[in-house]
Amino acid sequence: MDPENLPVINNYLDASEPVSSEARLSRMHFHDNQRKVDYVLAYHYRKRGVHPGQGSPGHSLAIVSNGETGKEPRAGGHGDIELGPLDALEEERKEQREEFEHNLMEAGLELEKDLENKSQGSIFVRIHAPWQVLAREAEFLKIKVPTKKMYEIKSEGSIAKKFNELLQKLSSPLKPRVPEHSSNKMKNLSYPFSREKMYLYNIQDKDTFFDNATRSRIVHEILKRTACSRANNTMGINSLIANNIYEAAYPLHDGEYDSPGDDMNDRKLLYQEWARYGVFYKFQPIDLIRKYFGEKIGLYFAWLGLYTSFLIPSSVIGVIVFLYGCATIEEDIPSKEMCDQQNAFTMCPLCDKSCDYWNLSSACGTAKASHLFDNPATVFFSIFMALWATMFLENWKRLQMRLGYFWDLTGIEEEEEHSRPEYETKVREKMLKASGKSVVQKLGTNMTENEDEDDEDKLTWKDRFPGYLVNFASILFMIALTFSIVFGVIVYRITTAAALSLNKTTRSNVRVTVTATAVIINLVVILILDEIYGAVATWLTKIEVPKTEQTFEERLILKAFLLKFVNAYSPIFYVAFFKGRFVGRPGSYVYVFDGYRMEECAPGGCLMELCIQLSIIMLGKQLIQNNIFEIGVPKLKKLFRKLKDETEPRETDSAHSKHPEQWDLDYSLEPYTGLTPEYMEMIIQFGFVTLFVASFPLAPVFALLNNVIEVRLDAKKFVTELRRPDAVRTKDIGIWFDILSGIGKFSVISNAFVIAVTSDFIPRLVYQYAYSHNGTLHGFVNHTLSFFNVSQLKEGTQPENSQFDQEVQFCRFKDYREPPWAPNPYEFSKQYWSILSARLAFVIIFQNLVMFLSVLVDWMIPDIPTDISDQIKKEKGLLVDFFLKEEHEKLKLSDEPGQRSLGGGRHSRSRAPSSAPSGRSQPGSIASSGSQHTNV
Amino acid sequence: MDPENLPVINNYLDASEPVSSEARLSRMHFHDNQRKVDYVLAYHYRKRGVHPGQGSPGHSLAIVSNGETGKEPRAGGHGDIELGPLDALEEERKEQREEFEHNLMEAGLELEKDLENKSQGSIFVRIHAPWQVLAREAEFLKIKVPTKKMYEIKSEGSIAKKFNELLQKLSSPLKPRVPEHSSNKMKNLSYPFSREKMYLYNIQDKDTFFDNATRSRIVHEILKRTACSRANNTMGINSLIANNIYEAAYPLHDGEYDSPGDDMNDRKLLYQEWARYGVFYKFQPIDLIRKYFGEKIGLYFAWLGLYTSFLIPSSVIGVIVFLYGCATIEEDIPSKEMCDQQNAFTMCPLCDKSCDYWNLSSACGTAKASHLFDNPATVFFSIFMALWATMFLENWKRLQMRLGYFWDLTGIEEEEEHSRPEYETKVREKMLKASGKSVVQKLGTNMTENEDEDDEDKLTWKDRFPGYLVNFASILFMIALTFSIVFGVIVYRITTAAALSLNKTTRSNVRVTVTATAVIINLVVILILDEIYGAVATWLTKIEVPKTEQTFEERLILKAFLLKFVNAYSPIFYVAFFKGRFVGRPGSYVYVFDGYRMEECAPGGCLMELCIQLSIIMLGKQLIQNNIFEIGVPKLKKLFRKLKDETEPRETDSAHSKHPEQWDLDYSLEPYTGLTPEYMEMIIQFGFVTLFVASFPLAPVFALLNNVIEVRLDAKKFVTELRRPDAVRTKDIGIWFDILSGIGKFSVISNAFVIAVTSDFIPRLVYQYAYSHNGTLHGFVNHTLSFFNVSQLKEGTQPENSQFDQEVQFCRFKDYREPPWAPNPYEFSKQYWSILSARLAFVIIFQNLVMFLSVLVDWMIPDIPTDISDQIKKEKGLLVDFFLKEEHEKLKLSDEPGQRSLGGGRHSRSRAPSSAPSGRSQPGSIASSGSQHTNV
Repeated sequence: MDPENLPVINNYLDASEPVSSEARLSRMHFHDNQRKVDYVLAYHYRKRGVHPGQGSPGHSLAIVSNGETGKEPRAGGHGDIELGPLDALEEERKEQREEFEHNLMEAGLELEKDLENKSQGSIFVRIHAPWQVLAREAEFLKIKVPTKKMYEIKSEGSIAKKFNELLQKLSSPLKPRVPEHSSNKMKNLSYPFSREKMYLYNIQDKDTFFDNATRSRIVHEILKRTACSRANNTMGINSLIANNIYEAAYPLHDGEYDSPGDDMNDRKLLYQEWARYGVFYKFQPIDLIRKYFGEKIGLYFAWLGLYTSFLIPSSVIGVIVFLYGCATIEEDIPSKEMCDQQNAFTMCPLCDKSCDYWNLSSACGTAKASHLFDNPATVFFSIFMALWATMFLENWKRLQMRLGYFWDLTGIEEEEEHSRPEYETKVREKMLKASGKSVVQKLGTNMTENEDEDDEDKLTWKDRFPGYLVNFASILFMIALTFSIVFGVIVYRITTAAALSLNKTTRSNVRVTVTATAVIINLVVILILDEIYGAVATWLTKIEVPKTEQTFEERLILKAFLLKFVNAYSPIFYVAFFKGRFVGRPGSYVYVFDGYRMEECAPGGCLMELCIQLSIIMLGKQLIQNNIFEIGVPKLKKLFRKLKDETEPRETDSAHSKHPEQWDLDYSLEPYTGLTPEYMEMIIQFGFVTLFVASFPLAPVFALLNNVIEVRLDAKKFVTELRRPDAVRTKDIGIWFDILSGIGKFSVISNAFVIAVTSDFIPRLVYQYAYSHNGTLHGFVNHTLSFFNVSQLKEGTQPENSQFDQEVQFCRFKDYREPPWAPNPYEFSKQYWSILSARLAFVIIFQNLVMFLSVLVDWMIPDIPTDISDQIKKEKGLLVDFFLKEEHEKLKLSDEPGQRSLGGGRHSRSRAPSSAPSGRSQPGSIASSGSQHTNV
Repeated sequence: MDPENLPVINNYLDASEPVSSEARLSRMHFHDNQRKVDYVLAYHYRKRGVHPGQGSPGHSLAIVSNGETGKEPRAGGHGDIELGPLDALEEERKEQREEFEHNLMEAGLELEKDLENKSQGSIFVRIHAPWQVLAREAEFLKIKVPTKKMYEIKSEGSIAKKFNELLQKLSSPLKPRVPEHSSNKMKNLSYPFSREKMYLYNIQDKDTFFDNATRSRIVHEILKRTACSRANNTMGINSLIANNIYEAAYPLHDGEYDSPGDDMNDRKLLYQEWARYGVFYKFQPIDLIRKYFGEKIGLYFAWLGLYTSFLIPSSVIGVIVFLYGCATIEEDIPSKEMCDQQNAFTMCPLCDKSCDYWNLSSACGTAKASHLFDNPATVFFSIFMALWATMFLENWKRLQMRLGYFWDLTGIEEEEEHSRPEYETKVREKMLKASGKSVVQKLGTNMTENEDEDDEDKLTWKDRFPGYLVNFASILFMIALTFSIVFGVIVYRITTAAALSLNKTTRSNVRVTVTATAVIINLVVILILDEIYGAVATWLTKIEVPKTEQTFEERLILKAFLLKFVNAYSPIFYVAFFKGRFVGRPGSYVYVFDGYRMEECAPGGCLMELCIQLSIIMLGKQLIQNNIFEIGVPKLKKLFRKLKDETEPRETDSAHSKHPEQWDLDYSLEPYTGLTPEYMEMIIQFGFVTLFVASFPLAPVFALLNNVIEVRLDAKKFVTELRRPDAVRTKDIGIWFDILSGIGKFSVISNAFVIAVTSDFIPRLVYQYAYSHNGTLHGFVNHTLSFFNVSQLKEGTQPENSQFDQEVQFCRFKDYREPPWAPNPYEFSKQYWSILSARLAFVIIFQNLVMFLSVLVDWMIPDIPTDISDQIKKEKGLLVDFFLKEEHEKLKLSDEPGQRSLGGGRHSRSRAPSSAPSGRSQPGSIASSGSQHTNV
């Protein structure tokens, strides 16, 4: 490399006075007002030996540019001042930064940087990528860019077309008013950028050919792979940030979102048409989101949008199911029978000693309420929801394909990822240790050493074993913790109920009080543990030292999901499947902790309680997490930082604070930390919507309401409160899809059990068809209640001061057991077993039927929409044609000078065939073969 | 195109006398002994007006060559002779052939063809593909070829390596002795062939650079897409064969497989090391198979091999389970109790009137036999087999990836397929009709016409509806037919049993006779229907008019599988789940056809009968299909053809018959008709092995024995009895994998039900833990038998001449019903319901547990073996390096002449950058990006 091309850092101001901030056109350019800032690195510096307040005032600007002549001035001018330990660290960091920035410039980037003219403060390194760097990297990254060729997207069949047009017209007020980037009718043929084939693309302005997101992606790519030999040879900006050498690295937003006036930028457009609650009814401008934030975030919002719109039909049907329950409440024979005062079922006391016998008609209210959710319509609703989940996933696959087509993601390969800094450190440590060991070994044998060598450059199972062990143990511990908290709440419920029922005044509201407080405790615990588990999952994943960023993310998600899932659902699973099943029977109750009877469900059935539990946890979680964690906490953080900033001596000059630069503004925003929490919240909600939908048909409605807000909340966060995230290219939503489909499958089983075991659906059916005398449910309540001879109550458990108006000989309890006068009293009766068989048979039939239907739906709906697969095929053909045409033209042009040259026939001939087949072989790499006859 | 390049057909012998057949080196070349025959087209001709026997004798050779000057001589010399209708057809065909052959030559192929010098006979058109055609097409087809670069395949970790070496040493006698094409240690870096980059490849001999299979594939590709305007513009050789214009088209085998002497060719090698029963114990030479027959057939044999080797462990465990049954037969308490003469359970008569009461101990034999298959070990075996199926599929995915890597199939795209001739015909018909209609419509409105236009060039749902309807109806009818045949056999059994039991002499063997004959009838029906259903499925798929060959194959397979599956398994499902369940009870039996009682299972339980049914159908199907259909029928066909040939007057000259050319030999072989029957046979067998493995643990053993033969049988067929198939490139086994995994999933449910419902496993367990007094099975038999008061037998159904030695008051029958003295006699008892609950609970637990384990196994085993994914990544990196190096060298070489040329600085400069980045962008299309730092 010749010395002319060596880039140079000018630490001092150039001859020309910079344009003052006010006069500059945009706050997103270098001070020469020409070069766009594509990326910003920020760090905090502290000058050695200089005490705060000693900084020299005045213009503090340095241009660090590329392509000028000169030598790199070492910053070692003050080198002889004695260094404190902190200063030494600071000095080292400074050197590392300098080397890194030097390397960046060697890679072709152009840098601008403020002078460190105060004792301490934030320094921003602005990075600009010139055209040749952009072109080179775009070629490397195989970024698809539009070619000159446009083509019409084939419209569908005649009826579908008309219907579509009508739909378009009807939904036009719902459309966000953003300029359409990809018209619905025409699409640019895209082809990976190649510097050889510039003639293919429609390059009008090299400054705007790549949009801002792409530019920053390219710079980020360079930042990620630039090494810094001083910092232990670490690779990339992420390691440097991890080592506190830089504080932050972010691309710039496109401007201010709330600037007054008509000047429009994408951020402002997004804010106005997407990130406000006022536009909640509109579709999302997905293409614009993708353009601004990149494909990964675009896919998230597309997914969220699809999920929300899928919630609409299920909400409608859920409400209908609920209304059906309301409408039929008066016709429900079992609850009428329960409410009928004349039936007078004398029930066994609910607790020992202090509780009295009671009349079943006093539980009339809960019976009626439970009919709202426990009616045959819910069975059909839960079948519907299982299929709905499959449909949703199938449609997501299709939407993903469609977006992939329009966003030119088809055929992108997985990007090779760099190892995480932590992984590299660990490998280095291992190699150091191994090389130490191998010296020792060389004295002994030299055979084993040879074999171990292979594994030295990576972590093996053996190295990872401790990490895995810790992981496994911690997860087990965490799950056990969750379970014991659930158990703790149960104990709380039992003891409180027992304590309250001693007191006569409180006795009437025992159940309500206890249930309500317990659910709230559960909710609070869930919310707290949710945050803790999130942190624990991160910690555990770090211990595992996964190799790449992608595996890190996947494992983190899996762990976090497992923990949060168990956390959110274990109290609900308890109520659904275990509560009230270990009560025992009068005369031989099951006791915990010496004297406390296990809790049982309310007389209306456990489904009612499940419904309460579910709705409170779901709504509470959503409301509190949305309001407090997503709105409140960021606001608080902002406030806190503002306060802190105000108490600290502000050193920035007045010009800055009046007209802050875009990088100042962005620096004050929260950094973007990934989509995991957003997805996680939605996935847990998806679980609430599908897993127990049989017991709570209103869940989709609440989810829908939440999501309409959630979309705008997230949008607002991304547009206004976060630094601009790096645009990440991705084809799909990754592991979330697997988790979603896993939940979908699990929901089939869970709903089957809720209907079969928790609800009264099966017993009613069995009674109606097997035991009832006239085929109606008359007598069902009587049938479900067993007899108990009160004389067999254990000593000391009888009601102490029975104020029941009749003489009680038999009391009733809800179970299928033999009566006291049978040869084997209180054993499970034949009814019990037959109903159990029916329940289990229902589970088998339901599960297999729904699974079969899901497979059928999955199989019937092609993963790739037919119009898209047609388009893709068509595009391949078009590309070949376009290429051949362009190559032909190019050939004609280049042939003329070729004939003029005196190189002669041999030379020009040797060139002609080599460029002609290249036109053929190149499209071949995207188009399918045998395509001499490509008839599109 | 200049007239110089027009290819020409010389129908007459050239000046030079051809080398006589004996003197030729190989029978696989043109008569110039240089150009290899890559493909052969054959047709039968009949000369107009010439009577047999008038043909002129002598050399009948014509060279049809490419690249010589001249005009195409029309074969219309005899044009004025009057034509019969047959002659007219013949003439038309001849013209079509001529046009087609002309088009082939225009595509660059070279043809040689015999003279039609006799009145009728077979003519072979030999096709040779010269280098430039091969190179052009290889580039189009993106055929990956080895580059110069070799690299070492990274070995695994130290322990695995040692173990591997040991394994290699141990298994060396099992290895076929074929030269290793891809060494285990080194692999050539492959890259799609490109004429621009010839320097990359190691081209020593242009004649052998592409192997024979690849050459014939290339020719076949040209044949497929060459049009023939005379024949209704049909595309490709397939249409021409369908229209009888050609009779056959096939590539040539590599020589004779049984030629004496040492000259070795791949076919002979395959025969000696693979396609003989003598080498049944050896591994298959998969790489050689792939090289000779192409990837599709290679994958089939690889799959078959993996399946067979997976059968080994399951056979071993199956045998152990069976032996466990044998060993514990004496300890089995229920069968001991049944055999105990002292217990003397008096059983109710098995038929009305003519049957007597009988003692349970007389069924001692079947009780003991059924223990062989009905013991707890089978439960574990069926769990094992469900996981085995998952493991097998996972391992197949891995093997497929591995083969894909070694065979350079990674990254090949789906080849765009041409429409099937039938589809094109149909579309043409439709367009004709539509254009007729649209003229009519133009008079009326001109709006609808416009909208219909879009759909005119393809078949819509509307066009296909009749086809789908016929399909649906036929399949339903066929399934109904199968069911009614099963029902017919049931009726046969019932009536025959009744008839035989009237006769005293036959009575003793009734059960054996009836069961055996019925199973044989079932078997015969299955075998016959199997053939019929195969034909019906083809017919139905043709009616559907699928667009491409691939969809045709997929739909055919699905239909054929559905029909054959129902056919093969419906009698088995009947025995497993329905037989003996609709018998009723003594006193109220279920009767069919007025007076025939429904059949019940033998006293040992239905499992025994299921086992008999299964083993006879499975073994019978395998033996008969293998022996008769796969060995016998081809032999018969051959014999028949031979006889026919001998009766016909032989006109071929003596030289030919003494030393037949390779194309003559191959012509006499059977044409290759696809792998569907081979796969289907194996898949149905896979069903036998997995679906009912709980009842017949020996199934894997029999399958293994069958497959060891099957592999060699199929191999022999492919090597010796079939024309060489076209080499087809494919990445996977397609829809078969889905079918396999579907069977695997279904087998979980089916085994769950077999264990729960058919076997006595659950009743024993329940008895042991719930009813037994001492926790053993003592008294189990008594517990399973209900009492019946013989006085309640219906009038006329009592045994007529009871010779039973005691006075019978109560007889026993196998069911759980209330005794006669209960308040509700003969109702299902509590035991019945509790056991039913247990059975159903078992199904739920088993199904969900096994499904969960399968998902776990699926998730734990990565689809891509880690070493392969490492290699693929490494290969990408190597490829980039290799490219850059080669480009660099090329650049250096080309720079020198570039400086010599007077074209000047501008010219050579403009070339240099354009070739350097091409080296960068090219590897970019295979390697991942950001790879400036690719450290492999």
